[in-house]
Amino acid sequence: MIKMGLKEKEQKFFDYLKKMESYEEALNLMYWDLRTGAPKNGLERRAETIGILSEEWFQMSVSDTMKEFLDELTEKHVYDNLSSVTKKALQECREEYEKNIKIPKEEYKEYVILQSKSESVWEEAKANADFNQFAPYLEKLIEFNKKFISYWGYQGHKYNTLLHLYEPGITVETLDKVFAELKKHIVPLVQQIVQSSKKIDVSFLHKPFPKEKQRKFSEYILKEIGYNFDAGRLDETVHPFEIRMNRGDVRITTKYDETDFRTAVFGTIHEAGHAIYEQNINEELEGTPLADGASMGIHESQSLFYENLIGRNYHFWKRYYNQLKTYAPNQFTGVSLNDFYRAINEVKPSLIRIEADELTYCLHIIVRYEIEKLLFEGNLDVSDLPKVWNDKYSEYLGIAPDHDGNGVLQDVHWAGGSFGYFPSYALGYMYATQLMQKMEQDLSNVEELIENGEFQQIQSWLTKHVHLYGKMKKPLEILKDATGESLNPAYFIQYLEKKYKDIYSLD
Amino acid sequence: MIKMGLKEKEQKFFDYLKKMESYEEALNLMYWDLRTGAPKNGLERRAETIGILSEEWFQMSVSDTMKEFLDELTEKHVYDNLSSVTKKALQECREEYEKNIKIPKEEYKEYVILQSKSESVWEEAKANADFNQFAPYLEKLIEFNKKFISYWGYQGHKYNTLLHLYEPGITVETLDKVFAELKKHIVPLVQQIVQSSKKIDVSFLHKPFPKEKQRKFSEYILKEIGYNFDAGRLDETVHPFEIRMNRGDVRITTKYDETDFRTAVFGTIHEAGHAIYEQNINEELEGTPLADGASMGIHESQSLFYENLIGRNYHFWKRYYNQLKTYAPNQFTGVSLNDFYRAINEVKPSLIRIEADELTYCLHIIVRYEIEKLLFEGNLDVSDLPKVWNDKYSEYLGIAPDHDGNGVLQDVHWAGGSFGYFPSYALGYMYATQLMQKMEQDLSNVEELIENGEFQQIQSWLTKHVHLYGKMKKPLEILKDATGESLNPAYFIQYLEKKYKDIYSLD
Repeated sequence: MIKMGLKEKEQKFFDYLKKMESYEEALNLMYWDLRTGAPKNGLERRAETIGILSEEWFQMSVSDTMKEFLDELTEKHVYDNLSSVTKKALQECREEYEKNIKIPKEEYKEYVILQSKSESVWEEAKANADFNQFAPYLEKLIEFNKKFISYWGYQGHKYNTLLHLYEPGITVETLDKVFAELKKHIVPLVQQIVQSSKKIDVSFLHKPFPKEKQRKFSEYILKEIGYNFDAGRLDETVHPFEIRMNRGDVRITTKYDETDFRTAVFGTIHEAGHAIYEQNINEELEGTPLADGASMGIHESQSLFYENLIGRNYHFWKRYYNQLKTYAPNQFTGVSLNDFYRAINEVKPSLIRIEADELTYCLHIIVRYEIEKLLFEGNLDVSDLPKVWNDKYSEYLGIAPDHDGNGVLQDVHWAGGSFGYFPSYALGYMYATQLMQKMEQDLSNVEELIENGEFQQIQSWLTKHVHLYGKMKKPLEILKDATGESLNPAYFIQYLEKKYKDIYSLD
Repeated sequence: MIKMGLKEKEQKFFDYLKKMESYEEALNLMYWDLRTGAPKNGLERRAETIGILSEEWFQMSVSDTMKEFLDELTEKHVYDNLSSVTKKALQECREEYEKNIKIPKEEYKEYVILQSKSESVWEEAKANADFNQFAPYLEKLIEFNKKFISYWGYQGHKYNTLLHLYEPGITVETLDKVFAELKKHIVPLVQQIVQSSKKIDVSFLHKPFPKEKQRKFSEYILKEIGYNFDAGRLDETVHPFEIRMNRGDVRITTKYDETDFRTAVFGTIHEAGHAIYEQNINEELEGTPLADGASMGIHESQSLFYENLIGRNYHFWKRYYNQLKTYAPNQFTGVSLNDFYRAINEVKPSLIRIEADELTYCLHIIVRYEIEKLLFEGNLDVSDLPKVWNDKYSEYLGIAPDHDGNGVLQDVHWAGGSFGYFPSYALGYMYATQLMQKMEQDLSNVEELIENGEFQQIQSWLTKHVHLYGKMKKPLEILKDATGESLNPAYFIQYLEKKYKDIYSLD
């Protein structure tokens, strides 16, 4: 292949990728639209449209054309002359190609049908708190995933292959170590807090706060922290999410609870963390699959950075508490800044993961991780799952579900066939605090910046070390390049111990 | 082809059409989204996405696969065994195929670029009221369209080919006749009104009416007249429009002018007329190109039916005027129902088509029709256009533009290369009144139904005679089947004379 031919081929590859990204933009818009107010009578046909465009995307990812690009552009004498973006794009596409091509078509179809069926059954089983109803589906989903692992291959533990889907580079070996560390420190700290005589008054949190005022305050805070409304918008949905149409259009949604403003305020800050990430990925990657978060965990590190390390920080509210009061003048009468700060950081072991506080959250994840590992090792029968679940909740959180509806059936993930996904949430917490520790070294005055509402410097640091790269680096590469070391749970543990011992006046 | 093979082939054809419709749904959603609040930084990439998906649709419409369907399914022994829906769908696709395939690719590309460039130039020229700036582009656009006509062929007058694009079956011969009739009656009636001593007080129309109240009243009225919010939604845009995602999702938009509530109220009723049409097309046609309005004119007949024959009807306000008052309590103090009715039907010759009243509207169209015909006959130089425009306005409307910005440059249509489109608006008025005349015969108590807010019967009549068919019938076929005769302008003239002589106490 001569030089000219190479450039042309490279360009054709990018045109092909751009077309795939265009399908994705259309699909994402349809997804967003379905959740922000598409009329119900149109849903059936819309589902077909989504199916048809998804199929088109999928076929492009495994087509002969794609195979040709992958083969021709990775021939050594060609590959060496490619730009680093092209190289990474080829790797991404190769992974996607291999992942999809290795599963026999018929089996994949069966699996998609099973997923969809399982989700409806799960919904009913959860409402009935009836695990037996869901168990046969769960068994089949696990069987399918075991078969997929056998097609895809694995290194070390079989479960590594699943982890790789969401968090490439993270293995059972790593997780066993870091989760053991977390348990060792968090479990006793939670116990200390539960047994402590210090009680936090949270009653004022639940006074009525009109939705419209919450919306205005949320918008104000979003602008303050650097969410760009010229490249996004805020809407209302039952389940909040962030979604990217393209680099200049990264939307977020929230929900408003008039008796708990935290839902909207911390929810929007969380989604804005995701969005600020995607609004600041290097423009050069636009139109390729690299214009996306590096992994679920790195994505979550950004949302949690904003939600917790900024949004639940004392210095943040030192600046914004008085502002908040002006949006709901009577709610906070007689509530000092300290009272407020403690209330929004109250620790309370609970049964439901998505309602958990910052300290106990990872324990919910560890329960799920340990169970998933056992399932894929073949050391746990699905029928024993509820018992193991409840035992682990008792052991780590000191409470146990009274029925499977708020126990083992609470999350949709397994019903959708997502195994290996949960650890990413916990990784997000660890990544975030590890990044913060380095940022504090580099900027030296992070608390001051927060207190002064100067978020631009904070964001610039994150953009420089995380956002810009999109998928150009793997998660641990980002972490290593940014902080100088690989995953180290010590920073998260230090952060939690310092913060919560202070709040609960322990030691 | 054996019977079994035929069914399969037919099914494959429908799958193919459904895929095209899916692209269209995605494109329409992107179009809607761009106008209802997509963030500005995303527009550039969005334009590319729209380009890529449109191209995909276009390629499907002229592909070898399409050609095969068209050829194989129209072989006589096959064709005779097809359902009527398949037959009509084949005709639609054949027309689209021929239209697109006959234009050389390179020429079409040049034309698309010219269109886009012309629209920007036109925008500037209009702002500068500088026709000379736009003239060279207009000349090229006309040249291109003349060439297209030579590729497509024509019967009778060359302009017929352009008319066919928007209003199949309507010819210069027909339009010359009906427009002559309209001029003969409307021009003197307008003169009489202008010269009459009767003046209508419209000052109260411009008192402030809060936007939120307008929105609520509009929603109320939309529900009353039968717009189905389970199959649609109402949003705000600079230029109101109606757009269909699918049969269960037909959206409308409006704009709110706080010093003229008529913009929103009559605007939403107008768009709802379009939407009620598309919400009630036969379900069997869904997923084919037949699930669309029969023509621009028939579409317009439905919006005008609702806007004018219902919305500006005395009996309508006899029912809803008191309701309206509750949304804007002070605006209508001392304004009787009769005053109100006359004010919303005030006749006032004006320069701008889109601001014209019901009586003078068609004169604006006739000016444009006569000019387009001259242009395509080769009997008018572009450079003479402003003069001819102004002369015709003086002759038909008794007023002339003071500059080309509110004269010949006012509409975007020509800049986009749309010639032959304007007559559809006037046809909509004639169709609507012709349908109403027959409906009155069939239902005998239409005024009573309106006054009682019983719109279901009215809608059922329209659905039975118009909506259901989608593109299964041509415009004049719909008219003939519904009313027993072809286009007859007498009904529109009668309607106008009766209504406006009454309002202005003439004769």
